[in-house]
Amino acid sequence: MDVTFDDVARAHERIRAHAKRTPVLASSQVDARTGATVFFKCENFQRMGAFKFRGAYNALSQLSAQQKRRGVIAYSSGNHAQAVALAGRMLGVPATIVMPEDAPRVKLEATRGYGAEIVTYDPKSAARDELAHKLAAERGLSVIPPYDHPHIIAGQGTAAKELIEDAGLLDVLLVPCGGGGLLSGCAIAAKHLNASCRVVGVEPATGDDATRSFHTKTLHTVRNPETIADGARTPSLGRITFPLVMRHVDDMLTVTDDELLKAMFLLWERMKIVVEPTGALAACALLEKKLDAAGKRVGVVISGGNVDLAWAATRLLAMPR
Amino acid sequence: MDVTFDDVARAHERIRAHAKRTPVLASSQVDARTGATVFFKCENFQRMGAFKFRGAYNALSQLSAQQKRRGVIAYSSGNHAQAVALAGRMLGVPATIVMPEDAPRVKLEATRGYGAEIVTYDPKSAARDELAHKLAAERGLSVIPPYDHPHIIAGQGTAAKELIEDAGLLDVLLVPCGGGGLLSGCAIAAKHLNASCRVVGVEPATGDDATRSFHTKTLHTVRNPETIADGARTPSLGRITFPLVMRHVDDMLTVTDDELLKAMFLLWERMKIVVEPTGALAACALLEKKLDAAGKRVGVVISGGNVDLAWAATRLLAMPR
Repeated sequence: MDVTFDDVARAHERIRAHAKRTPVLASSQVDARTGATVFFKCENFQRMGAFKFRGAYNALSQLSAQQKRRGVIAYSSGNHAQAVALAGRMLGVPATIVMPEDAPRVKLEATRGYGAEIVTYDPKSAARDELAHKLAAERGLSVIPPYDHPHIIAGQGTAAKELIEDAGLLDVLLVPCGGGGLLSGCAIAAKHLNASCRVVGVEPATGDDATRSFHTKTLHTVRNPETIADGARTPSLGRITFPLVMRHVDDMLTVTDDELLKAMFLLWERMKIVVEPTGALAACALLEKKLDAAGKRVGVVISGGNVDLAWAATRLLAMPR
Repeated sequence: MDVTFDDVARAHERIRAHAKRTPVLASSQVDARTGATVFFKCENFQRMGAFKFRGAYNALSQLSAQQKRRGVIAYSSGNHAQAVALAGRMLGVPATIVMPEDAPRVKLEATRGYGAEIVTYDPKSAARDELAHKLAAERGLSVIPPYDHPHIIAGQGTAAKELIEDAGLLDVLLVPCGGGGLLSGCAIAAKHLNASCRVVGVEPATGDDATRSFHTKTLHTVRNPETIADGARTPSLGRITFPLVMRHVDDMLTVTDDELLKAMFLLWERMKIVVEPTGALAACALLEKKLDAAGKRVGVVISGGNVDLAWAATRLLAMPR
């Protein structure tokens, strides 16, 4: 199933009045450290704190009147849950979110706070996607997948479209990669607007399925990788995102959790922005000099900022000084 | 000594190409919580992490060629030190900063990193202002005071000018207050552009000298107040800022350290911005409902983001949950 720049442009028309046009920030300290001119697209300032709102709103707004009346269902314990819940509330579409019963209380409450119905399950005894599809069938709900859907991908691509419109042409664009929705959408937008821009995805080293898939041209899967980048614990690229990544992305890089934590707190300390671990993946690859950026104009997507502060504080104090 | 909107407008011409035009952020969660429409002017994203750059650059750029050659001196262990150091480097003006020898290593290094010469003193045995004036006389340096100077005040006022230009007319403008440079500059700008805007300064409760001075119309002084808002530990308003505050400011409010800490972390968690305690003073007054903001358009100056992350982490983990 192809997704084109036209889809991204149309998604942008749909979400423009509802999503935030997040700021593009620069840092002379990061520029000095990397030798590059860096433009950070700050999706941590997006509604509900992550880029996920773009895709969710784009998907929900294209449902038929009947589908909207019946409602939507999503399975996620992370940002996609809050994105579907918030987009549902804004569009008057009832949203049901399937979450593990041991999901952090703060995430359950945030999702419920956006007006969604939460259905919990025992993660030891049930598979969440089966449960979601069963509920969807029983109640006539539309399933909104977290990344492997053309409307989701097109919505996420609007982040790169805005970045290039605001920052100008780039030599390199670095994008975090979990299931590949953000990465493939951004690559489609970047390659259309800025054909010479190298698009590079960044993954956690323990969850390097997309990197291996990219280099071997065969879909690899990883099971529950241990990484602090919880948004990139997805088992593999999707049926739709994998071929899009193969076609539009130029390279994939990985970073370790130690590198990621250091980069995340550098963004907090120097750029004064709160970024979640997954949200710092692309910035980390740049700061750790995993690619040659000197003299280049580099775009970096900061994908989200939803991090438990107490968790972060504990990790910070445990770091070697 | 009067400072007028013309001075602010001319300062803006001088600094415009060198300071960042910091973003104005909104938060639907803060709006929901306060019933107001709130515009945050994010000076934590300013060069060197605080509004202080505006005044310092404006002051240094108006020195004569000879004064620039000889250099400047400032006494500060905080953001003013870094501001003078950075503005000095950008303008090719040698900067000497007088700091207590027990100043945090990170601040000494940051200031030295901007190319300033650091002169330390024993805070038990010497007064920093005397030392600075002695050095200034010996070496022919120009003293750049932290707030009580028309060029500093005019420079700081550009923050409110930009805020009103970007956000539109406001009903209320809330500004942190230490020595009153930012507050009086912002009040001058706001009252000119937006005569019906109420301008309110916010201080820490333990360092409420400006609030008492404002209400009694007599200059009060407080000695080394204990507060986490280190930028507002100044003993009193200045000879120039006090009358300006009396003339242009409508009210003064105070917040406790407990309230301030809570507000600061709310900004981190919900708005994804790293704000230092002093930088959160104005936001805190709003969030703690110290004034009636419902239905109003409220501007809030976030004055800086230079906070030691390990300190903040320790305070966060010690807070009651």
